[in-house]
Amino acid sequence: MSSRPLSEIGLIEGITTTRAIRRYTDEPVSDQDLAAILFAATRAPSGSNRQPWRFMVLRDDPTSREAKRLLGDVAVRIWELKRRRDGYDQGSGRRADSPKSRMAGVMQSFAEHLASAPVVILPCYLRYREPSHFEGASIFPCCQNLLLAARARGLGGVMTGFQAGCEAELHALLGIPDEIVISAAIPIGHPRGSHGPVRRRPLEEFVYESHWGQTPAWAVDPPGTRHTSAGPPGHRARLEGEPTR
Amino acid sequence: MSSRPLSEIGLIEGITTTRAIRRYTDEPVSDQDLAAILFAATRAPSGSNRQPWRFMVLRDDPTSREAKRLLGDVAVRIWELKRRRDGYDQGSGRRADSPKSRMAGVMQSFAEHLASAPVVILPCYLRYREPSHFEGASIFPCCQNLLLAARARGLGGVMTGFQAGCEAELHALLGIPDEIVISAAIPIGHPRGSHGPVRRRPLEEFVYESHWGQTPAWAVDPPGTRHTSAGPPGHRARLEGEPTR
Repeated sequence: MSSRPLSEIGLIEGITTTRAIRRYTDEPVSDQDLAAILFAATRAPSGSNRQPWRFMVLRDDPTSREAKRLLGDVAVRIWELKRRRDGYDQGSGRRADSPKSRMAGVMQSFAEHLASAPVVILPCYLRYREPSHFEGASIFPCCQNLLLAARARGLGGVMTGFQAGCEAELHALLGIPDEIVISAAIPIGHPRGSHGPVRRRPLEEFVYESHWGQTPAWAVDPPGTRHTSAGPPGHRARLEGEPTR
Repeated sequence: MSSRPLSEIGLIEGITTTRAIRRYTDEPVSDQDLAAILFAATRAPSGSNRQPWRFMVLRDDPTSREAKRLLGDVAVRIWELKRRRDGYDQGSGRRADSPKSRMAGVMQSFAEHLASAPVVILPCYLRYREPSHFEGASIFPCCQNLLLAARARGLGGVMTGFQAGCEAELHALLGIPDEIVISAAIPIGHPRGSHGPVRRRPLEEFVYESHWGQTPAWAVDPPGTRHTSAGPPGHRARLEGEPTR
């Protein structure tokens, strides 16, 4: 984690060091922190500034605990499936100290402890026209603002899709109207572990100029950038043959 | 615009003052600036860190100019429709100095000049499973990082959906494979005009705790926050009766 005071984290520094945080201390998230990160979330753009977002905040009352339990059950189920399907226990996954094993350990623990995350925020989308890919432009930028603002306040979180596995139950339990889409489930808490540079594929693999596939010479990462592969361990194998769902 | 040097813009300050910038000077956007904002974009999260994004950068070569012309034609067509449909020339829109008139002027000029924006970036999404609302979680957070990083570099831009009006033409012209979704069209340039606090509805309208509709007492904006209504001028009227498409 940066040694600079949190209040001074710069915009670019914040963007480049906001990691997915999946382990939290027991310290509750304060009202002030929640207000600040939700204020930041709602500064995001949306189509025609419609602001078609609502945020369900789940903390420690019985209803919220039950909702978090539902999400936690889905997380465990999905992780078990993924662990097998993506071969987390194969190859280097057999060595306890490999990056793959460590990632598997983090994911296992994350799924098992999701129900006790200090806060889970459900960003909800008020659909106002036919469902399409593009409606995401009016809800997911605000999720990114939320995660960045959490970083600025000394908190951390991660975007998950676990709500999709218990959508009807969450709607019923929380009184969410049918026409509302729960877009994500974002646990937030005080990080156990730290933020730091995130890893991606090299920039040159992502950027084309004027024609698809034409990588410009300027598309290079800053010096010293470390890379990672894309997707889960089984990703490439699956792309080459197995069905994707 | 803040009087602090750009390099020192803080994370929260950047998030809360990144406005949609629709007017640009003629100054070109440098290679270094483009690399920096695309690097920031690719620091965003994506499902299983798949990084299913590609960026088509349109600058000043003949193909890019043609692509920008296509987008500009769509922008003019859509704005004409919107101007009529949302009643921009009705009510206070008849007074040249009203906020509504000024907004209409900005949008008219934006549409007319889009083809000559210094850069247009097309964030593209590599679809790897059935289309759904949730795939946006792996492409629109990176668009927000891109806009925030542009702010940090003294640039500005705005997320638009104009690509949807000329999708087939853009795919053909730029050689974009059929299975790739062009998720947005984001013009970028040196701002004519300035960044500054964005305006939204009051936070209390957006935040619920433990049950839908239950607004917590802590969900308040920082002191001095100024608000705006949601959506275009005709939005409410349309919700109350007119069809939305």
